[in-house]
Amino acid sequence: MKLEIQLERDSGVPLTEQIVTGVTTWIRTRTAHPGAKLPSIRQFAADYGVSRFPVIEAYDRLVSLGYVDSRHGSGFYVADRQPAGTACQGSSDLRRAEEETDHLLQQFNHPGEMLKLGSGFIPEGWRDVDALAQAIRHVSRTDPASMVDYTTPFGNLTLREHLQARIGQLGIQAEPSQILITNGASQAFDLLIRYMLKAGDTIFVEDPGYYNLYGLLKLHGAKLIGIPRTRNGPDLDVMQAQLKLHRPKMLFINTVFHNPTGTTVAPQVAFRLLQMAREHNFSIVEDDIYADFQTDVTDRLATLDQLEHVIYVGGLSKTLSSSLRIGYVVASPAIIKDLVDIKMLTSIGGSRFAEAVAVSLLERGAYRKYLERLRRRMRDALGSTIQTLEDAGWELFDKPVGGKFLWARVPHVGDAQRLVECGAPLGVTVAPGHYFRPGMEVSPWTRIHIAFGNAPRAQAFFHAAAKLPESA
Amino acid sequence: MKLEIQLERDSGVPLTEQIVTGVTTWIRTRTAHPGAKLPSIRQFAADYGVSRFPVIEAYDRLVSLGYVDSRHGSGFYVADRQPAGTACQGSSDLRRAEEETDHLLQQFNHPGEMLKLGSGFIPEGWRDVDALAQAIRHVSRTDPASMVDYTTPFGNLTLREHLQARIGQLGIQAEPSQILITNGASQAFDLLIRYMLKAGDTIFVEDPGYYNLYGLLKLHGAKLIGIPRTRNGPDLDVMQAQLKLHRPKMLFINTVFHNPTGTTVAPQVAFRLLQMAREHNFSIVEDDIYADFQTDVTDRLATLDQLEHVIYVGGLSKTLSSSLRIGYVVASPAIIKDLVDIKMLTSIGGSRFAEAVAVSLLERGAYRKYLERLRRRMRDALGSTIQTLEDAGWELFDKPVGGKFLWARVPHVGDAQRLVECGAPLGVTVAPGHYFRPGMEVSPWTRIHIAFGNAPRAQAFFHAAAKLPESA
Repeated sequence: MKLEIQLERDSGVPLTEQIVTGVTTWIRTRTAHPGAKLPSIRQFAADYGVSRFPVIEAYDRLVSLGYVDSRHGSGFYVADRQPAGTACQGSSDLRRAEEETDHLLQQFNHPGEMLKLGSGFIPEGWRDVDALAQAIRHVSRTDPASMVDYTTPFGNLTLREHLQARIGQLGIQAEPSQILITNGASQAFDLLIRYMLKAGDTIFVEDPGYYNLYGLLKLHGAKLIGIPRTRNGPDLDVMQAQLKLHRPKMLFINTVFHNPTGTTVAPQVAFRLLQMAREHNFSIVEDDIYADFQTDVTDRLATLDQLEHVIYVGGLSKTLSSSLRIGYVVASPAIIKDLVDIKMLTSIGGSRFAEAVAVSLLERGAYRKYLERLRRRMRDALGSTIQTLEDAGWELFDKPVGGKFLWARVPHVGDAQRLVECGAPLGVTVAPGHYFRPGMEVSPWTRIHIAFGNAPRAQAFFHAAAKLPESA
Repeated sequence: MKLEIQLERDSGVPLTEQIVTGVTTWIRTRTAHPGAKLPSIRQFAADYGVSRFPVIEAYDRLVSLGYVDSRHGSGFYVADRQPAGTACQGSSDLRRAEEETDHLLQQFNHPGEMLKLGSGFIPEGWRDVDALAQAIRHVSRTDPASMVDYTTPFGNLTLREHLQARIGQLGIQAEPSQILITNGASQAFDLLIRYMLKAGDTIFVEDPGYYNLYGLLKLHGAKLIGIPRTRNGPDLDVMQAQLKLHRPKMLFINTVFHNPTGTTVAPQVAFRLLQMAREHNFSIVEDDIYADFQTDVTDRLATLDQLEHVIYVGGLSKTLSSSLRIGYVVASPAIIKDLVDIKMLTSIGGSRFAEAVAVSLLERGAYRKYLERLRRRMRDALGSTIQTLEDAGWELFDKPVGGKFLWARVPHVGDAQRLVECGAPLGVTVAPGHYFRPGMEVSPWTRIHIAFGNAPRAQAFFHAAAKLPESA
């Protein structure tokens, strides 16, 4: 009998998961006979009007679960022998096939009444909307051209000079010609990947790490090798072992207040990483978008390396505004020259207005004052969320001194997907650890946004989760 | 003797040209002996701290000029027999190797005192900066979240509904779920190319056409086939002949007030193009970014096709503001679904503030009133620039009824590069036709921006150019 499943776009359940559930149900209810052919990925996508990505992920998952056989060059078939009992243990396994973009979509789509404990976004209340509004009005009165014209290809020079001074405070020496303004840090990553990567290249990423980066790298056909993140940075022993097996082109690393663990790379780890980069001739892309959350400055990789093997990425989205879309990349002049070509071809340029607004805030000292308030607020929220979690019996991966994320688990719960299911009826959305792993592998950890850790609903959730029975 | 040339970054002379001139001088002054090896492209780029793109173009040019031999797998060598006399005829030949991004850079970098007759940008005086400033202040007061948060992945729904109504007036039926807001039309092209193109794919483009699009397609490894643009649209006979030789994946076409010729596709040509697309199974990307310049609406390809083979791209950069970076793509729901995934992975999203400002202007009717004034202004400038050109003895490719471009030539001048050289001492920058050709082929035509056609300097230039001696 023909495969017919119901996909609901607005259900909040990722398409991949719906497809896996639909196909396994079709198989388990004996509607499908063994050996029956599944529609091709392209066909399935066309029939259901969905992207091919979730279908690919779902089919992969079905094959690895044993429900479906893949015959090279021929297609996908219902397996002769179905896995015993697997499907009855619940669907948590299946959910791991979810793709990165679904997760990102969820952050936008979650019903407003849910507490977004797993969100990566900055709450509006943490922003300085008054200063922003003032700067916006100021620029609208004093700089009419900024409202209508393209910015220059490198971006506003005054803005680059301000950024030069800021990274100078971190000990990174760069000329304005080495700083390229981008449409958020995302465009910086995208330009770098386009410039440096060929399909099939091996890239080292952190595990756990930033899921959108994984997706972007996969989009470009990269092969990802996950390097476990410890409290002090990437696990150097694993790194060393993987360097014996692979020749990576790049390592992507989030140095300070790492997403999702909140940890910061220790100086001795930074030093060893740079040695490895020199020995094995790979580039390091240092993602430092949380730099301005930090009160007591620590050395960056780029501080030690001075942009020889390191390319430095920053932005104002996590502090000033995500709407201005101001990111930047700092690198050797030769790299920047090529990146600006690609930037122009792919986007012409950024918003002159947004850059002028950023300059206005940096110039008038409003940004500095705002950062002081923001850091105080974050320290308070961090301290009390740590306390709340510990009181509830949760385990913390690390106790960071700043930043917006905590990486936490319930000691006896082996799969954070169970926490998602526990949070939903309590009105709390949770970001389970497998979202942050390059291969969506099971994880007991979950990312907690400290802005929401003290809400009564979060507290109720922490306690309820701690009382979950141990898994079978 | 070792190759040593001087590259000046800020000279306004494209790097490619500087490299070609430097190498030919090195060869012609007998500093180099025949058979001497040139540095590899990578080495040259590293030695001079420049991108590889201009080096590749320069070496290609040197080979085709006969100065240099390329030996497969081995490198580049000074040719045994040098071309006779070529180098003494002037450098106009060499300039054709210039890359697209250099041209775009020039538009930003030209000294302010030059009259930018060849510019593609909208003059600030044509914009409605008062209405924009009002809308910006209004949004800054009434919608604080827009100043700090990301927009949703598809973009502001109200904006998409307004755009739905606007394209509805062109007879294009689409749901808001078929409209994706992009960071300028540039991001729309980039997303489409990423989604649909594999390196090596053949793409049909218009000749002449939009140079930035050529560069973007080349960046993705596409093979470009130029279809001559006639006054009524692409030359259908050439198109038919090329379809016998190639299997294009896409045709990119600028339907209304085409850049650079100012022409508009006639209905019968549109109809034939769509038939060809169906027969030969390729997609058409309809670039309609000048749509709002048009007073009397004509049928778009998407009007006839209703988004089966046509993907429609528009934007507000050419009217409202280039700084807001608002473009959009309209396509079947399945295509939009995939594009939104790629958009999220590569940029997370656009500016919520910019989208709110656009909504505010569309909602309050300010945009409609502005367009009426803009179109009147453009008609006047167009009429008088046509008159001025004809009085000076220039020939027009077409006499468009609107838009901002005229495509014109001096009848006895075969290479518009000579017009560039004629304009420079008069303080006028000119966009020679070869910029707008996919292979930078010689062209007698030049693009005139009607906003500047009546400046005294432009008139002086038109008359001086008409008096140029016939070329040898």
